[in-house]
Amino acid sequence: VFGASNFPLAFSTAGGDTAAALAAGCPVVVKGHSAHPGTAEIVAQAIDAAIRKLGMHPGIFSLIQGGKRDVGQSLVQHKLIKAVGFTGSLAGGRALFDLCAQREDPIPFFGELGSVNPMFLLPEAVKARGEAIAKGWAGSLTMGAGQFCTNPGISVVIDGPDADAFVDATTEALAPVGAQTMLTDGIASAYRSGRDRIAAAKGVQELLTSTCDLRNATPYLFATTGKEWLDNEVLGEEVFGPLGLVVRVADFDEMMKVARSLSGQLTCTLHMDAGDTKHGQALMPVLERKAGRILANGFPTGVEVADSMVHGGPYPASTNFGATSVGTLSIRRFLRPVCYQNMPEELLPADLR
Amino acid sequence: VFGASNFPLAFSTAGGDTAAALAAGCPVVVKGHSAHPGTAEIVAQAIDAAIRKLGMHPGIFSLIQGGKRDVGQSLVQHKLIKAVGFTGSLAGGRALFDLCAQREDPIPFFGELGSVNPMFLLPEAVKARGEAIAKGWAGSLTMGAGQFCTNPGISVVIDGPDADAFVDATTEALAPVGAQTMLTDGIASAYRSGRDRIAAAKGVQELLTSTCDLRNATPYLFATTGKEWLDNEVLGEEVFGPLGLVVRVADFDEMMKVARSLSGQLTCTLHMDAGDTKHGQALMPVLERKAGRILANGFPTGVEVADSMVHGGPYPASTNFGATSVGTLSIRRFLRPVCYQNMPEELLPADLR
Repeated sequence: VFGASNFPLAFSTAGGDTAAALAAGCPVVVKGHSAHPGTAEIVAQAIDAAIRKLGMHPGIFSLIQGGKRDVGQSLVQHKLIKAVGFTGSLAGGRALFDLCAQREDPIPFFGELGSVNPMFLLPEAVKARGEAIAKGWAGSLTMGAGQFCTNPGISVVIDGPDADAFVDATTEALAPVGAQTMLTDGIASAYRSGRDRIAAAKGVQELLTSTCDLRNATPYLFATTGKEWLDNEVLGEEVFGPLGLVVRVADFDEMMKVARSLSGQLTCTLHMDAGDTKHGQALMPVLERKAGRILANGFPTGVEVADSMVHGGPYPASTNFGATSVGTLSIRRFLRPVCYQNMPEELLPADLR
Repeated sequence: VFGASNFPLAFSTAGGDTAAALAAGCPVVVKGHSAHPGTAEIVAQAIDAAIRKLGMHPGIFSLIQGGKRDVGQSLVQHKLIKAVGFTGSLAGGRALFDLCAQREDPIPFFGELGSVNPMFLLPEAVKARGEAIAKGWAGSLTMGAGQFCTNPGISVVIDGPDADAFVDATTEALAPVGAQTMLTDGIASAYRSGRDRIAAAKGVQELLTSTCDLRNATPYLFATTGKEWLDNEVLGEEVFGPLGLVVRVADFDEMMKVARSLSGQLTCTLHMDAGDTKHGQALMPVLERKAGRILANGFPTGVEVADSMVHGGPYPASTNFGATSVGTLSIRRFLRPVCYQNMPEELLPADLR
């Protein structure tokens, strides 16, 4: 299990991947993230204390800290490692995925590699309550300095006066949000690179800009047209932080084209009123093939640990389309079915006797 | 879905992989195996007739025949192909697995790549009914000219007079089995290469030999010691056909060593009586980590399509340790979970309304 930079507790040493693997009966080796070695150590000591108190085998849990990339690379290639859980960047995750696939005995790499979590704003909803949606988006986009995997980075809206009002309301809601401290210097610097990438793209308009330095992040808002977005893959790449991009499409047909052109996503969101039902129904078969979780009239940043949760999706949201890294189903990644045929009672696992 | 050479009906055009993928709602493209193009065509015509009769979309099923390896390679790299089902050789399967993993958007390759299906004969059972086990083994080993993925190619037995009697009884049971026609020239030629590989290995004794040519296969029986088997990986590689290898181990400790050194298997079998329970219990934690299916006092060649069936296992038995290619659970390979949050009734799939 690789600790995630953005969740020092919920997705690192004793986070969701570790809990799922332990629950499946697997000993776990955690590679601590360099962003929070102290937190990792404190949590590992708590786990170690629990293991001693319960008289469990000490090999059930290990934490490895420090070193460069070669430490993680060695771990995923070790013959006793049989599966990997990872939350992080596309580049880093893909490199480890490749090592897992290239082993003499390939092992599954369950990686959650990012998502832009697009929201589709349908016309009746934008007309009736565009300002409320704008305020909600600004809150979701800037929560925790935008450092959520499920941060909704893109809003797709049909061009016109209602879209203008939505854009104005979003700008107004984001403007007073001050600088927030990001988790690491690396995340802050990657945020600014992402911002520069979007700002430099052809046909992109700056709606809200600011300056941020050191480990600070301030919100940015950009707009582009559906045509420009469809022509430029860069505009669909994740910028990790409080940066929003409004994609103004010419009509609903172009909104469908944007949906069809999406890469795999953790979430897709619809904002819709009763009068938008037909458009929503038309989008659903597309969105169901693009995302692990589809929401209506909400914001995706809150991820409940529940039976029905899917935190995964087609690549690169997840490297395994059948897997979720949050929720009850997450244990399945680390389970292996065994069929017992005609076994004497005494040889069956205790639960099956 | 790649048609399997050894199951023109049950694991080819309309076989288990196709049924599982269709049941999961996926359109299927079958790459027919060159061993049985006529059978593939007849079955495809039946599927096509059913599609027309039911008014289903004709794109739900396609059969592609002919060509060299580049046809299959192109298929697994096509952007509309999202998962692959395969039953076949380790070399051929691994090449396709690698192509799937190397895609810009990697896709799962569900490959069943072979198994030697070892049987562990515990001492009380061998003493009490070694001859019956020998007869059963001979039947399972030669059924269908040994062309089953679950063919039990290896029997591990503790050396001594009871082992001698078991070996004699096996030789006697196999001797009268005549030549059987194999499915293809390629399978027959690979069988003879495998036989030569075993016969040439150090410390291997020929117990039953014969000559077979053209597309014929006659049974062969070899014996070796636990020590030789542990020292030579070649002896653990699958020989597809009616060839048996008896591994005479010095004692139960050496039997445990043989079990621990196994690569992933579709099946492992125990032959045991009540007095063998402790030995069986000692083997179980090892075998559960080596095979997808564990049997007692039976033979693995019959694979029932049932809820509890697992036809898979650690690599190379399967490329995905969580997958089975036979039984109800086989559908899971082609399913992708989607979470619906706060969706209006009208946008949910009909089954969830």
